[in-house]
Amino acid sequence: MEFDRTLADRRMGRLRSLLGVGAGEAVLILDLKNIQYLAGFTGSDGALFVAPDSAVLLVDGRYENQAKREAAGVEVRRYGDKLAGIAAVVSEGGQGRILFDAAAMTVEGHAKLTEKLPGVVLAPAPADLNRLRGVKEEWEIDRMRKAARIAGDAVLAVLNSIRPGVQERDIAIELEYKMRRLGADGIAFPPIIASGPNSALPHAAPGNRRIQEHDVIVMDYGAVVGGYRSDETVTVSVGNPPDGFQEEYAAVREAHDIAIRTVRRGVACNSVDAAARGFLSEKGRGHFFTHGTGHGVGLDVHEHPRLAAASEDLLEAEMVVTVEPGIYLEDCWGIRIEDMVRVRNDDCEILTVLAKDPMVL
Amino acid sequence: MEFDRTLADRRMGRLRSLLGVGAGEAVLILDLKNIQYLAGFTGSDGALFVAPDSAVLLVDGRYENQAKREAAGVEVRRYGDKLAGIAAVVSEGGQGRILFDAAAMTVEGHAKLTEKLPGVVLAPAPADLNRLRGVKEEWEIDRMRKAARIAGDAVLAVLNSIRPGVQERDIAIELEYKMRRLGADGIAFPPIIASGPNSALPHAAPGNRRIQEHDVIVMDYGAVVGGYRSDETVTVSVGNPPDGFQEEYAAVREAHDIAIRTVRRGVACNSVDAAARGFLSEKGRGHFFTHGTGHGVGLDVHEHPRLAAASEDLLEAEMVVTVEPGIYLEDCWGIRIEDMVRVRNDDCEILTVLAKDPMVL
Repeated sequence: MEFDRTLADRRMGRLRSLLGVGAGEAVLILDLKNIQYLAGFTGSDGALFVAPDSAVLLVDGRYENQAKREAAGVEVRRYGDKLAGIAAVVSEGGQGRILFDAAAMTVEGHAKLTEKLPGVVLAPAPADLNRLRGVKEEWEIDRMRKAARIAGDAVLAVLNSIRPGVQERDIAIELEYKMRRLGADGIAFPPIIASGPNSALPHAAPGNRRIQEHDVIVMDYGAVVGGYRSDETVTVSVGNPPDGFQEEYAAVREAHDIAIRTVRRGVACNSVDAAARGFLSEKGRGHFFTHGTGHGVGLDVHEHPRLAAASEDLLEAEMVVTVEPGIYLEDCWGIRIEDMVRVRNDDCEILTVLAKDPMVL
Repeated sequence: MEFDRTLADRRMGRLRSLLGVGAGEAVLILDLKNIQYLAGFTGSDGALFVAPDSAVLLVDGRYENQAKREAAGVEVRRYGDKLAGIAAVVSEGGQGRILFDAAAMTVEGHAKLTEKLPGVVLAPAPADLNRLRGVKEEWEIDRMRKAARIAGDAVLAVLNSIRPGVQERDIAIELEYKMRRLGADGIAFPPIIASGPNSALPHAAPGNRRIQEHDVIVMDYGAVVGGYRSDETVTVSVGNPPDGFQEEYAAVREAHDIAIRTVRRGVACNSVDAAARGFLSEKGRGHFFTHGTGHGVGLDVHEHPRLAAASEDLLEAEMVVTVEPGIYLEDCWGIRIEDMVRVRNDDCEILTVLAKDPMVL
């Protein structure tokens, strides 16, 4: 799948519909993943200006040639100063009203642009642009499936080398290297390899701690293929696990399975969270589950929708989301079990590849 | 060097002075690198609230334990919703005026916070907070020197394996792996390994292109040690370089050397840029130099100050900046030569380790 004019036109058409962009209006996109999604450009800075019947991609000198190679459906222009470049495009187009993404525009950028565009109305977009990316196309899901396969294979290859004395950071380094060697374009995020008491920190960075016999290790990792990410977590023990671990593991596993069974088109995201949280709460473990149940995955590792108590999102077919309940016993250990799934009409397909049975290394 | 109370107090004191924070006022910090700089917390989400005689670090449930371990000089509080958490801290403190970083606050966040804090004035901070991080302490420079050493050693180790047939991405993977194995906590940024015509793209991502005899390769890379980054670029050729390369290399090298000779305390950053650009322009190559001459490096790979024509920054002693002129001949090849240097009173110290003589592999 190459990013082409047809895809860009279709996506920008959906953007225009979502926001109801009319004559004399245009949309300013500053979020880089949204720019990539709409126009195919993968650089680290830029702006996309979408009018009713044209679009301009603005980039700095570093990215001009790359933008011309990668982007489709847009005219590429180079800027010296980004806001001045945007202002020039608006002035030329003569639009009187610019919709912008209030979650991607800084207060500083807004103030400077307002100053450069007297008489032009800058209005927050009336819908969340990130929703555009929630429902995936088949080729996007294929990339995520491939990323999940690579990440799972990489973990299996690395598990062999986990033994007492090895440092967390060494496991992380080997895991990253293996994912890349197996064909990943990159890592979806710095992997979490949290052992012993560190496993009670949901987002610990891998450090110098050496693995000990009876350690619990939470491993949270993902790969990137063609821009699309995977996300999976396994929790393993080195030798016999500590007292109480098996019972807690069974509880988290059950919460995970129950939540996954609720995933289908039309279900409220907060009810998936409630399914996992309700089960753990019944078992008296609700207060150890300190984060949401999941999130969408795609070009970003965290994207629309959110599977959390406060979420008002609905699951739609072909969304890809994680289901990842966990419990964390401070200073002792933690457990998280995470799969990435594709929402279907009546159920979901698990895209991650590792079985979530207890694993003793 | 551990992040401790003394360091936190000193840095937060500098913040209060810079912004002139008075009674009934406080500063809201949202930029994660600024939070790390001021309070020592390295998580991927949070907010820091600095009042005249107290400070609160707000984090979500994933980071509560980590924040308590890492942070100093602050009270750690957990939030469910970040903006609600911030509003609660402001209400409790009774501050009537909150200064915020307009470059880190989104229009959306600002609108929501305004709604939650009726009667409280939200005002953009009257100075750029990123300036706080411009001048480094000795231990920070030590980390950057160590990062530069690791990165340079890693490149030397990888150069041996560069030969016709090898893919750009394989070189990048091995380079990243080598940096980690040599002790880096991570990579400062995804390395650029741009070969043949790709070398004419200043920020090309390493791809599947296979190295060919007579290729030019631009390699731009850095390591992270204790949060601090390095940044260096070498341009090499595989076998005899293409026609005209040696002459262009000599010009870029000379521009680089001339610029470095201008670096010292009190010099305007735009004059360092002018030194490199002026030399290349005299040689008729100014229009091939499509980016600025350099930037500060520290917790971020790009930070204050900027060495560019439009910069109004001044060099101060103990700043660490890059000097990296380049020229890019579209569809042919490019050259960039970059060192990271420490500004001293009368000159600068080059922290990167590789000589910038022409290298033929």
